[in-house]
Amino acid sequence: MAKKSAKDCFIGFDLGGTKMMAVVYDGTFNVLGRRKRKTKGAEGVESGLTRVSRTIEEALEDADISADQITGIGVGCPGPLDLDKGIMIDTPNLGWKNVKLAQRLKDEFGCPAVIANDVDAGVYGEYRFGAAKKSRCVVGVFPGTGIGGGCVYEGRLIRGKVGSCFEVGHMQVVPDGPLCGCGKRGCLEAVASRLAISSACVAAAYRGDAPHLRAAVGTDISKIRSGTIASCVQAGDNTVERIIRNAAGWIGIGVANIVNLICPDTIVLGGGLVEALPGLFLEEVEKSARERVMPAYADTFKVAVAELGDDSTAMGAAGWAQHTLQGND
Amino acid sequence: MAKKSAKDCFIGFDLGGTKMMAVVYDGTFNVLGRRKRKTKGAEGVESGLTRVSRTIEEALEDADISADQITGIGVGCPGPLDLDKGIMIDTPNLGWKNVKLAQRLKDEFGCPAVIANDVDAGVYGEYRFGAAKKSRCVVGVFPGTGIGGGCVYEGRLIRGKVGSCFEVGHMQVVPDGPLCGCGKRGCLEAVASRLAISSACVAAAYRGDAPHLRAAVGTDISKIRSGTIASCVQAGDNTVERIIRNAAGWIGIGVANIVNLICPDTIVLGGGLVEALPGLFLEEVEKSARERVMPAYADTFKVAVAELGDDSTAMGAAGWAQHTLQGND
Repeated sequence: MAKKSAKDCFIGFDLGGTKMMAVVYDGTFNVLGRRKRKTKGAEGVESGLTRVSRTIEEALEDADISADQITGIGVGCPGPLDLDKGIMIDTPNLGWKNVKLAQRLKDEFGCPAVIANDVDAGVYGEYRFGAAKKSRCVVGVFPGTGIGGGCVYEGRLIRGKVGSCFEVGHMQVVPDGPLCGCGKRGCLEAVASRLAISSACVAAAYRGDAPHLRAAVGTDISKIRSGTIASCVQAGDNTVERIIRNAAGWIGIGVANIVNLICPDTIVLGGGLVEALPGLFLEEVEKSARERVMPAYADTFKVAVAELGDDSTAMGAAGWAQHTLQGND
Repeated sequence: MAKKSAKDCFIGFDLGGTKMMAVVYDGTFNVLGRRKRKTKGAEGVESGLTRVSRTIEEALEDADISADQITGIGVGCPGPLDLDKGIMIDTPNLGWKNVKLAQRLKDEFGCPAVIANDVDAGVYGEYRFGAAKKSRCVVGVFPGTGIGGGCVYEGRLIRGKVGSCFEVGHMQVVPDGPLCGCGKRGCLEAVASRLAISSACVAAAYRGDAPHLRAAVGTDISKIRSGTIASCVQAGDNTVERIIRNAAGWIGIGVANIVNLICPDTIVLGGGLVEALPGLFLEEVEKSARERVMPAYADTFKVAVAELGDDSTAMGAAGWAQHTLQGND
C-alpha cells in the first residue's frame, strides 16, 4: 500500500453521528490507507475537530504519504450545510453549530476542502464508482432512520439554495397518513423507512406474528438491526416479509413520482436494510414503480442496489472534491 | 416596427393543437412582427409544414426583415420529441409522426432550428423574460386539460433521456384515487387540472349547486371556458369557488413534493384558468405547499403567476434557441 511517490491524492471523509472515517485515495481512486474512530459529538466541537484531524493524520500514516501529497479533501457530513462556505450550520445529532469545517481543514492540511451532505456524497460515489457509473441522471434512495435521497444530473449534484435537497423521505404519499418525525403526516419515510419497518416488526412480534424476530430481539425496537430483519425473513417470518414488501411498494410510489418528474436513468437503492435484502427490495420497488410511471417512461430507467457499502460517503466525497477542484468526472 | 437593419433576430414558434403562431424578435427580444393561423393538423404533415413555413414568412414580412437576418428558430411543440435530433416523434392530437421539424426549417430558412416541448418552452420563457427572471431554479406548473410542468435549473431545461420530462400532472397524490387519462389512478391532474375542475363544476351545475354556471353554459363540459369559471366565482357560485380551492390545495401538495425534492426558488403557476383567477390560486397553492414542505425549506421559495400569457411558448422557444446557439441567458 505504501506510496511515498504518490501525487494528486484525495482524502474522503465520512463524518457520521456515531463514527468517523478517513480514506486516502490516489488519483485513480485506489485506496492507499484508512482510519476510523468514534465521533463522540457530545464532547464538543473543538474535541470533535481534533478527532477529525487525528483520523486524517493516521490515515495518511497508514497510506505512508504526507499532507503535501494531497490535492484536496472531501467531507460528507450531516446537514443542514452551507455548501459554498463549507459550514456545518446546525447538526442536532452532534450538537454542533456553525462549524467552519472546510476552512479549518484547509488551514490544517494546506489543501482545499469541500463539504457535501452525507447522502449526496454517497449518491455521487455510486455515480462515479458504483452502481450508477456514467448515468446521465441518477437518483439515490436510502432508507434508514429516515429516507435520504440525492440526485446527480449530468455529472453535478442537484442542490438547493445554499445546501442539499432531494428530501425523498418527505414526499407526501398518504394524505393525512401516519405522523412523520418532521411533524407532517403521510411522508414516505413515515411508512417506508427502516425505522417504520422496525416499528411494524416489533408490533408484529408483540402480537405473536413474528416468532423468529421475537425470539431474536424480543419487542425492543432499539435492538433491531438490518441483519436481524434479514435473517428473520430467511427463517420464515412471513409477516416481517410482508411488512418489507409493503414498505418497498411505497418506496416504488416515491420512485415513480421521481421518474415522472426528472426521468433518471438509474435509481440506486441503498442503506443497510436494502443491502441485507437486495432481491426483495429490487423486486417490489421496481414492480410498484413500473406500475405507476408514465407509459412512455416505462423503459427509460433501471433500479439497482448500491455497491459501495460503508465506503460510499467517503469515496463519493473524495470524488466530489476532485470534480469540484479539477473538473473530473 | 420595421427594422430592415436588424441583425441577430430570432423566430419563436408556438405549434399548438389548434393554432400556430410565429413571432419575430430582435436580439434583445423586442417583438418585430408576428403571425398566427389555425394548425389543421388533420390535413396531414406536408400541408401542416407548409402552413408553418407560410406563417414564418408572413411574420418576417410583418417585421419587414428577410430570412438572412435570422440567427435561429425555436419551436415549442407538443411531445414526445427527440430533442437532439429535432424530431416530433408522435403527436396524437395532430396525427403527425416522425416529423423532422428542425431539419426542415433549417433547409427552408437557412439558419439553425431547435425544438422544445411547449410547456418547457413556456417555463423557459418565464425564466428568461417573465415571472421567474434570474431564478437559480424555477418549476412551472400549468393546469390545463392535463397539468404540464417544466424545470429550469441553473439556466438549463431539465430533460429526460431523449425528450422532455417533469410530468407534474402524473405525480400520484391520492393512492387508489380517481382514474387519470394516462390509465393510472390518483394522479395530480386527475384531481386538479382545469378539466378535473370543469368536470366537478358541471356536476355541481347539474345538482343545482352552481346557478350562475348553469345559467351561463348549462351542464355541457365542452362549453366551459376559463373565463366562464372566473366570472361565476365572481358572481357568487360558492361551490365553484370551493372546487377551485380544493383543486389548488392538491396542486399545493404537488408543489410541496417538488420543493422537498428539488428546492426551486420560484414556482410559476400558469395557464388560462390560473391567469383568470390568480389570487385564488396563489393563496391556496401557497398555503397548502407551505404547510407541507420541510420546515427548513419554508422560506426558500416563492409562488408566482405566469406573466407572458399566450406568448410564453413562442418567446421561450426563441430564448431557448438563443441560449442553445449562442450560450446566452
